Amino acid sequence: MLSKNQIKQITRLKQKKYRIQDQLFVVEGLKTIEELLHSNMKLQSVYTTEPFNLDAKKEILISESDLKRISFLKTPNKALAVFEIPESKPVVMNQLIVALDDVRDPGNLGTIIRLCDWFGISDLVCSLETADCYNPKVVQATMGSIARVNISYLDLADFIGNQDTTVFGAFMDGENLYQATLPDRGILLMGNEANGISDKIQALVTHKIAIPRFGNLQETESLNVAMATGILLSEFKRRTIL
Amino acid sequence: MLSKNQIKQITRLKQKKYRIQDQLFVVEGLKTIEELLHSNMKLQSVYTTEPFNLDAKKEILISESDLKRISFLKTPNKALAVFEIPESKPVVMNQLIVALDDVRDPGNLGTIIRLCDWFGISDLVCSLETADCYNPKVVQATMGSIARVNISYLDLADFIGNQDTTVFGAFMDGENLYQATLPDRGILLMGNEANGISDKIQALVTHKIAIPRFGNLQETESLNVAMATGILLSEFKRRTIL
Repeated sequence: MLSKNQIKQITRLKQKKYRIQDQLFVVEGLKTIEELLHSNMKLQSVYTTEPFNLDAKKEILISESDLKRISFLKTPNKALAVFEIPESKPVVMNQLIVALDDVRDPGNLGTIIRLCDWFGISDLVCSLETADCYNPKVVQATMGSIARVNISYLDLADFIGNQDTTVFGAFMDGENLYQATLPDRGILLMGNEANGISDKIQALVTHKIAIPRFGNLQETESLNVAMATGILLSEFKRRTIL
Repeated sequence: MLSKNQIKQITRLKQKKYRIQDQLFVVEGLKTIEELLHSNMKLQSVYTTEPFNLDAKKEILISESDLKRISFLKTPNKALAVFEIPESKPVVMNQLIVALDDVRDPGNLGTIIRLCDWFGISDLVCSLETADCYNPKVVQATMGSIARVNISYLDLADFIGNQDTTVFGAFMDGENLYQATLPDRGILLMGNEANGISDKIQALVTHKIAIPRFGNLQETESLNVAMATGILLSEFKRRTIL
């Protein structure tokens, strides 16, 4: 049985300040845990309700009720692992990278990390106000992709201001995406769910692009930021293979 | 103050059987209600916590606590409207339509309806097991788009079997989407979240297509069905304008 203190050490990782303090985060579900074990992520410990032989030394068999106590999910999923937060590697600029200006919703951030993985984007740069990628909801939504994308939290104005590259921003009044020239490197910048790209960052955008509307939607309408990122990345990447 | 019976008449619309029986559905939030008022949808009544002059005869001023009683949301949003479920129009086939084979998640269905609206897809055909589009969660996720897409629930095998058109299905082992020939008409078929397109319906697919992976994801991985629909529709529609 887990002690009160052990339970507290895990459940407090729900809060960002303890994740930063301990440099640890939680992953749930066997499939995602296995994916992370096959990556460079370092396991601290894994708690399972049956022996899965995930790790000879760090696997701890616990009861279903103990799993319920430490899980962040409504229906806990047989295994919960604690991993060390990896250090971000320096951003590699001679390729397409994605930058997020205050994307706040954990589900959106998780989906965007998944999309980066799918489309082979190895670097994701987040503004300091963007949701924390080690938030359990984000980790869950990435479905393991969090291990394969290098995620950096930086002062975004500072970072972009120091790059000598094209900066593509998604705007309603931008150039038609399908007709725009899209290079195989640069920064694709996506904005906040409610307010889009902030004024300060907008000044650094070199190319405004838009996903054309074909229906009868009003001009003020927009697509969800994760959906827009998926459509934009698909368009950038198709150019590299055709 | 609303009577117990009035409250029951509204809250029971959370259940599909009563929506079918009453031919009514609920919409919450001023913006979406206004969008639906500007469409062909027929208003039955609208309940608001302050006078918005949405409708001279059918607007009923209620208290915040009454709104809480009838709302399906955790944080009710100033207005709740009851609309009549419109009759589906016949499916128009000389264009691109989307068909769903058992998409069960209301959020996914709502997002797909929104995408149809964005990309000018006027007809969405759903298998009988697909989530109900008048489910409050679906209506919410469509952000008003439900008024602009003709949604039909049909026996999908029967419907597709009777069409003389190309049927595109999303499969892992399909042809590279970007290299495939995509016409401006036909059926784009998307499958269930867990099981994809069912065997019975698979037999009717004339063209298997796939969204290429660029990263180091395993071959068994896939994108969420709504995200895949967005990327596929973007690719179909770009061909029509270039």
